[in-house]
This record gives sequence, structure tokens and C-alpha cells, in this order.
Amino acid sequence: MDYRFAGRMSRFSSSAVRDILKWTQGKDVISFAGGLPAEEWFPKQALEDAFSRLFSEGTGRELQYGLTEGFPPLKELLVKRMDAIGIGCSVREMILTTGSQQAIDLTARILLEDGDTVLTENPTYLAALQVFQSAGASVRGINRDEHGIDPQLLEQAILEHRPKLLYVIPTFANPTGAVWSLERRRTVLELCRKHNVLILEDDPYGELLFEEGSRPPTLMALSGAAADSPVIYTSTFSKTVVPALRTGWAVADERIIAQLAKAKQAADLHSSCLDQQALYRLLLTFDLDGHIARLRQVYRERMETMVDCLKDPVWQEVRFEQPQGGMFLWLELPEGDDAAAFFPAAIQEGVAFVPGDGFFTEGGNGRSIRLNYSHSRPEVIREGMERLQRAYLRYKQQIPV
Amino acid sequence: MDYRFAGRMSRFSSSAVRDILKWTQGKDVISFAGGLPAEEWFPKQALEDAFSRLFSEGTGRELQYGLTEGFPPLKELLVKRMDAIGIGCSVREMILTTGSQQAIDLTARILLEDGDTVLTENPTYLAALQVFQSAGASVRGINRDEHGIDPQLLEQAILEHRPKLLYVIPTFANPTGAVWSLERRRTVLELCRKHNVLILEDDPYGELLFEEGSRPPTLMALSGAAADSPVIYTSTFSKTVVPALRTGWAVADERIIAQLAKAKQAADLHSSCLDQQALYRLLLTFDLDGHIARLRQVYRERMETMVDCLKDPVWQEVRFEQPQGGMFLWLELPEGDDAAAFFPAAIQEGVAFVPGDGFFTEGGNGRSIRLNYSHSRPEVIREGMERLQRAYLRYKQQIPV
Repeated sequence: MDYRFAGRMSRFSSSAVRDILKWTQGKDVISFAGGLPAEEWFPKQALEDAFSRLFSEGTGRELQYGLTEGFPPLKELLVKRMDAIGIGCSVREMILTTGSQQAIDLTARILLEDGDTVLTENPTYLAALQVFQSAGASVRGINRDEHGIDPQLLEQAILEHRPKLLYVIPTFANPTGAVWSLERRRTVLELCRKHNVLILEDDPYGELLFEEGSRPPTLMALSGAAADSPVIYTSTFSKTVVPALRTGWAVADERIIAQLAKAKQAADLHSSCLDQQALYRLLLTFDLDGHIARLRQVYRERMETMVDCLKDPVWQEVRFEQPQGGMFLWLELPEGDDAAAFFPAAIQEGVAFVPGDGFFTEGGNGRSIRLNYSHSRPEVIREGMERLQRAYLRYKQQIPV
Repeated sequence: MDYRFAGRMSRFSSSAVRDILKWTQGKDVISFAGGLPAEEWFPKQALEDAFSRLFSEGTGRELQYGLTEGFPPLKELLVKRMDAIGIGCSVREMILTTGSQQAIDLTARILLEDGDTVLTENPTYLAALQVFQSAGASVRGINRDEHGIDPQLLEQAILEHRPKLLYVIPTFANPTGAVWSLERRRTVLELCRKHNVLILEDDPYGELLFEEGSRPPTLMALSGAAADSPVIYTSTFSKTVVPALRTGWAVADERIIAQLAKAKQAADLHSSCLDQQALYRLLLTFDLDGHIARLRQVYRERMETMVDCLKDPVWQEVRFEQPQGGMFLWLELPEGDDAAAFFPAAIQEGVAFVPGDGFFTEGGNGRSIRLNYSHSRPEVIREGMERLQRAYLRYKQQIPV
């Protein structure tokens, strides 16, 4: 057979992170590549109890087909959690999704047509770029300054490309870990409202902040309420509970939620409602906020361990900002270095990272790398960073002067 | 805000079945509308045990992000189940999906572009039509005779429209319950191979056959093997275990699976791997085939109960074929009747069905209705059919002669 695939399939490639996993599989490699939460901190017992209660109290109905929009009682609890961070919405302004990844994908489906432009931060989340490319949109990256996405460049791009959508991660971004200032949030919101551009605010890391009370308001909260908001907000339980349940959510104006539900009906009818019901039961009794507070400490310690390792003189020409939250450290190697050439040396020493170029809309400068610190215990981070150091020295020696 | 949705969103409507659920919610209505399996036969205890073992034997890794293609050990078991029905494939020729609905959607994503044509049986599964319409394809329905889809009409349509895809449910179709003959299967396979048209074979009901040993071979089995096959095969555990786990699978040539995985990565990274792991553990100890054998008896009794009710003289002008398996009975009302006008009378009497027109690609003759028998106990079916009878009499009396 001559299989004839759609043109869009060649417009995006499989994730670089995924390919790296293949490189490292079965080898003794310490991976700073994936965006994985810490397994040893998963609330395993609480989840086991939640599933056990779900089955013992269930009637069989809990195993039947569910609603496309998601399990209503879980949505009601989520509405309260949203309210606690200043996002006013009703259950009719929310839909549950298979991770926030699906919220990004469904947003693309309801909005984008071939030739539409999507604006994103540059660099940004790789799998979001894949979604927009696979939807046939052209993606334009907007560079940032220290306060967030550059508003002048943003307005120029809006005027030039008349995009339907701006995709952003304003808090502890992937891959940079950066946070927008409050003022920048207000400016971008105003710009998008003025030019009728929808903002997809992806907020999977917002709760993982290291300084109590330092979480900036979301764009959705700043926009007033979900009704008539220029923002579609999405987040997930993948980073605060566990990824395996694949439960994310989106909050937006009811007209948008209705379209997302229509698209989701075609995509998969609904996500696992067993997982949604178990999560609901977990939230009834488990102190999720206490758990998140512990995670913050754990991740902070890991981040500080990694940053500490970077104090070695070997790294003195490497630039980075110490993250205030999230899961990633973003390094820029000195002029003349090449992250893609450094990568094989790292694998050889038994440590993996993600070369940064894939996160850029039009390729980066070849010198950035993303390190994940959330997944590895401090002692593993130290060992991995020693390997990285050896690899870097080895890489530098091979470079012809 | 002026929300600007993609044009495709207006090209398909929300499911009629779904809208009917809204009509019936909170009322004392016996529903023959949904395509729901019997809740009281769900293997609840076995599932509870499977989840319990999963947690007690787990290391935490089972709650981490999983592979886009699905949990490998479950795929290995599925490869064996496929082999048992004559489908030769490896784990690399299989992907797990969020129900078979997602397999349909991903197939559309990797193949279809605006203006492409998809051929389907006529009538066919409503939510598949939604997928193809939402992908911007134009859908052409091919009528059937008593042996299956009409091969002459099919070849004409292939020559006229040069479609990339033919979507079919050859065994116990939704909505008609019909089964293709072996010869027709061979003819259609041959035609599609000759004209390089991919076949998406949707087989959610194939295991629900009423006569032991009467299951015809799938198109995929007839095609030889997954490698270089013109068939993408999909099925699901929704009808044989439970729908809430949302676990389906697709089998196809490795090149196709690679594209499906790429599309799925953008769509949702992966489906709930907790559910996949629980299903795997269930299959290790639970006698699924014994369970399916019981389901066949249960559904057969329910089908026969419904057919028995249709022997009342009230229904003498109504035509239908007694199903040999599956979940649906397809009725054609006599000339002059109007299923859409009959529907409100039925709701008033407290019973729901799906008017058949929505299943046709270009609207039906207004006289067909789909009845589901799998969800209701025999005594409920009798009560519901009495209500339907009263509703039909009431409806007929209102018709001006």
C-alpha cells in the first residue's frame, strides 16, 4: 500500500524530549531531560484509598460512560480551587481534559484554520508548538525581556499577522522557568483585549512556587472573570497529584467551553471518568495544599542543589537565572559552544538534558540547554551534575581552538 | 470579546444522542437511546482487585508519565487476543487510545486535509461522521444491500471521489446491527487494495455475537497481516470490560502507527496509563472470554425480549432484521410515518430512542429509529416497549388521514 498522509504530518516532528528518552533507555543515564515530577513524593496511599472508596461505595454507574465535560463534582471542587486564586468561574465555564495537553490541542481545533497565525513566547513549550504546527497554523515566536514577553514586539506581530491566539506560560515557564511581572501581565492582557486576540494561558507549574505568597495573579484572574474573558486558562493535576491520571482542565467563557466540548466529543467522547472520580474522592479527604507545600520544599531543595553545582568554576561562563518555582533550569552556554555537540558527550558520561533549540519557533542560537531538577533526588542531582561537568570539560577539549 | 471559531466547528453539530440525554435527564424515562452496556454486568470486583494489586505492588513508577503508544504489557496481551481472531500483528503495529473514538479521530488527523473525501456506510456511526466533518473532509455515504456495503456503488464512488479512507463497521454495525457476508468482505478489501484506499475497520461490537462460532473474520484478518495492510483496525474494552476506563486500540502497518503516535503525542501525550495498567492486571487473572460469553447470553435475552415485544400487531408494518449480535435494533416505520414526530410522543410516554436520520450522511427517509437493548433489564425492556407502543398509537392517531 502507498499510505497517503496529510501534509500537516510532515510539518512537525516527534518531540526531541521523546527522542532523548530513546537514547537513554536501558542505559545508566541520569536524566535531567524529561519534565517529570518526583515519583517518591506521589500521594500513593491517598490515591489507593480514593480508588478503594470509589469501588466500595460505587453502584456500577461509576464505570459507565461519562459526560464529555467531565465529572461534575470534581469540577465543583475545582471551581473552588480556582476561586482561591482569584479566578471566578462556574462549572459551565470549565471542561476536564486528558491533561492540559489536550486543552491546548482542543483550543487549536476550535480556533485554527490552515494559514492562521499563532503567537507564542520564544522559547516555549515544545509540545504546544507541535499542536499549532499540526493544526496547519504558522507560529511566530515573540522574544522576551526580563519582565516577560516583549509588548512592543507583541503588538507589532499582532498588527502584522492578525493572529487568533497567543499562547503563553507566564509563571515558571517551560523551558525557561521565567515569571512575568504583574505590570507585564496587565499590559499583555490589555493589548490582546484591544486587538481581539485570545490568550491561551498554560499554568501547569503555577502552584510550584518556592516563596510562599509570591505567586503572581494569573492572566485569567486579572481579566476579571471567565465570562467574556480574552483568556482560556488551563492547568493540570499532573504536577501536583500524579501524571498517570491525565486530568487537566480548562476555564473560559461558556461559548468557548461549548466549542471545546463539541471538539472533545469528536476527539474521544470523554476522558477516563474513573480517574476523575478517584481524584474527586482524593480531594475530599487529602490535604492537597499541604502536599503542594511539601512539594515546593522538595523542589526548592533540588533546584538549589543543582544551582550549587553550577558554582564550580567550570561553569563560570554559563549564564542562568535561579528559578523562583517550577521544574526547570535554563542555561545559556558561552559564545562558540554548541549544545547539540555537547549532548553526545553528556550521554557518554551518563547524563541527559534537552538541547534548547527545539523550544524556539525558528531555531535558537544553539547554546541553550534545559535541565529538569524536579525528578531526581539531591544526591542524584549531584552525581548527574558531576557527570555533566566531566562531559562539558571533555566537550570543550575537543573543540578546535 | 468576539470569539472567532474555525469554520469547521459549524460543519458538524453536537451528537443527537447527547441532546436526547438532555431531554431525558431527571425524568422517569426508559432510554433505548444511548449505546450503553449493562451496568449490572460490569466486572466490578475484578476491577477493584486489579486496581488494588496495582497499588499494592506498585513502586510509584506506575503513576508517572507513560508512553504515548500505551502500556507495553497490555499491548502484548492484546497482540495475543488479536492473534486469536486471526489478526497478525506485533506491539509495534498497535497503539492504545482513549476509546476507539480516539482511534477514529487520530486516523482522520493523520490522513485528511480540507477537501478530502471519506466514504462510509450509509447509515453509520454518528460520532465518526462528526470526526470526518470536523476534519474538513466531505463525507459520502454508500448504501448497503443484505450482504454489506454495495461494491458497485463503492467502486463508482472511489473512481469519482478518489477518497483516502473508507470507514466501516462490518460486524453488528451501529446503528443497523447488520453483518457483512464473508464474500462481501473479500470484495471490498480487494477493491480498496486495488484503488489504494485505506479502510478504517471499527469493530467495537464484534465480540458480542449471539451464536457461538458465528463471528466472521475481520477485514484486517482477511488482509493477511498488519504489515502493508490496507486496513486500520480498531476496537475497545468499553463494551467488554467497562467504558469508564476509556481504553481502545488500533492495529495497522508500523508506518501508520508511527503517524498515529505522533498525532496522539500532540493530542494528549498519552491516555490514562493507570487505567491501562489496571486493565493489564485484570486480564492476567480475570476470565474475560468467560465474561464475554455471559454478556452474549445477557444481550441475546434482551434482544429477544425486545423483538418479542415487536410481535404485537401494532408493529406489524414496521420492518426490522433480528440482530445476530451487538447492541442495537434498527426499525423502519411504514411509509408516511415520521420518526422525528414520533419522538416527542415517546418522551411523553416515558421512553426514548434515537431517530435514525442523524446516522445518514445526507439525511435519511425520516422513518428509521435505533433502539438499544443492551442497557436495560428484560423487565425494563418490556415496560419500555409498552410505553413505546402507547406512544406509537398516540402518534398514529394524531396523524391526519
